[in-house]
Amino acid sequence: MRVIEVLQEASLRVYNNVKHLAGTEESGGDFGRGAGGDISRKIDIVAEKTVLDYLKEIKFDCTVLGEECGRVELSKNPKGFIIMDAIDGSTNAVRGIPFFCCSLAFATDNKLSSITDSVVMDLSNGEMYHAIKGKGAFLNGKRIHANEKKHFYFVVGLDMSGISQDSLQQLAPIISASNHIRHFGAVALELAIFARGLVDVFVDLRDKLRITDVAAGYLIALEAGGYIIDKSGKFLDSDLSYKSRISFIAAANKEFLDDIVKKLKIR
Amino acid sequence: MRVIEVLQEASLRVYNNVKHLAGTEESGGDFGRGAGGDISRKIDIVAEKTVLDYLKEIKFDCTVLGEECGRVELSKNPKGFIIMDAIDGSTNAVRGIPFFCCSLAFATDNKLSSITDSVVMDLSNGEMYHAIKGKGAFLNGKRIHANEKKHFYFVVGLDMSGISQDSLQQLAPIISASNHIRHFGAVALELAIFARGLVDVFVDLRDKLRITDVAAGYLIALEAGGYIIDKSGKFLDSDLSYKSRISFIAAANKEFLDDIVKKLKIR
Repeated sequence: MRVIEVLQEASLRVYNNVKHLAGTEESGGDFGRGAGGDISRKIDIVAEKTVLDYLKEIKFDCTVLGEECGRVELSKNPKGFIIMDAIDGSTNAVRGIPFFCCSLAFATDNKLSSITDSVVMDLSNGEMYHAIKGKGAFLNGKRIHANEKKHFYFVVGLDMSGISQDSLQQLAPIISASNHIRHFGAVALELAIFARGLVDVFVDLRDKLRITDVAAGYLIALEAGGYIIDKSGKFLDSDLSYKSRISFIAAANKEFLDDIVKKLKIR
Repeated sequence: MRVIEVLQEASLRVYNNVKHLAGTEESGGDFGRGAGGDISRKIDIVAEKTVLDYLKEIKFDCTVLGEECGRVELSKNPKGFIIMDAIDGSTNAVRGIPFFCCSLAFATDNKLSSITDSVVMDLSNGEMYHAIKGKGAFLNGKRIHANEKKHFYFVVGLDMSGISQDSLQQLAPIISASNHIRHFGAVALELAIFARGLVDVFVDLRDKLRITDVAAGYLIALEAGGYIIDKSGKFLDSDLSYKSRISFIAAANKEFLDDIVKKLKIR
């Protein structure tokens, strides 16, 4: 079984196990704070357990880095890391806003840039995005690309929830120049729809994202031809510690990237 | 035939006539600027024509105020006004982002507060919201209410696209205090999901919204128990001129309203 098939099967099981829960009172049950620092909701716990049970069942030799469970060693001889946010967009899921996903990535080493396989599954409708390093990004098995049209609309994803005054000031030129700002509330799925060409630029400068939020979407966005840089303008990379906090700028093509870099005054 | 049934039938016809268009190259065809000032897309034109043809077919005596067509007198003895944004969220529709709607309202007089009936139809999935003045707000025929739980999550909808520096500064305390900011890109549907309890507060201070964007969602939000005020803190009202530009704050309950008014330093 290939690694990508393991991730696909795991996310499919999550889809089947949580679809009756979204938008229900039950889904929001409070299970205390997870490793990542957020409140764990019942839907998060059910989803993580689904992935962990499956990996144990097939005896997949790995170390799991999970949003709620933290670091779990499933083997003494791990082949690599599974980076898991079994429900990204838990608030949406609990409310019943149809934008949340399962985000799973596999890395051979302790770095974002070591990710070789990833899956983001839209849990509101079962659409599956995946990417394999060097092989491209796909939606339901069909190749996808970040927006290559330079003069079409200009749709900008921005997460500003709880942002600092300084970062808000840095974003101001983008905010005032953009006619179509969007924020749907699940970064892995926002990177996936970016990879599909629905959004042209996605910016999150809050230094709040965890590796588990970003890992799977990162490879999908890159394999779809997108650019992803950090706040200093360098290609985004990070170790896989769940204490790491990430900011990034994703742009669908070089023209959009240059424009955003100029507006944000980085480099 | 009751007025609400006319609006429901018209929006159902729009749904059937545009569902094959969303996300296609064809849908984005440029038809110049509409009465509201935005570029009219093919999908906008098809949808407006659907509503106008239907109103003519049933000889509905009214004056239509449309996003693209402007003011159209369908009768010398109009019973009132149909305020139409046949596609709200055209950019999403053209891109294939599943968040756009048909927004239709009926007013007996030339004021927002004279609206007696309204329909917002989610064109991505056919869900129909409607409201009748004094009778409540409904989703697919079932009564809906704005969020009455005071201590649950706190999901804030904000439209900041192209906002001025001053308004951005006014919003800063809300932005930095909110963990869950959302913007989906179709104000009528955002008011409808607010009315359903999925979003707690929705704020748009850009002075850019037209009456056609707001009319139908306005009655649905109010009939669901929500509060809607203008920038000066007064109950929102306006004439129905398509030159009017609107800002508003919607809050699901009195506690949320008081909190937002305090943070925005209005009143």
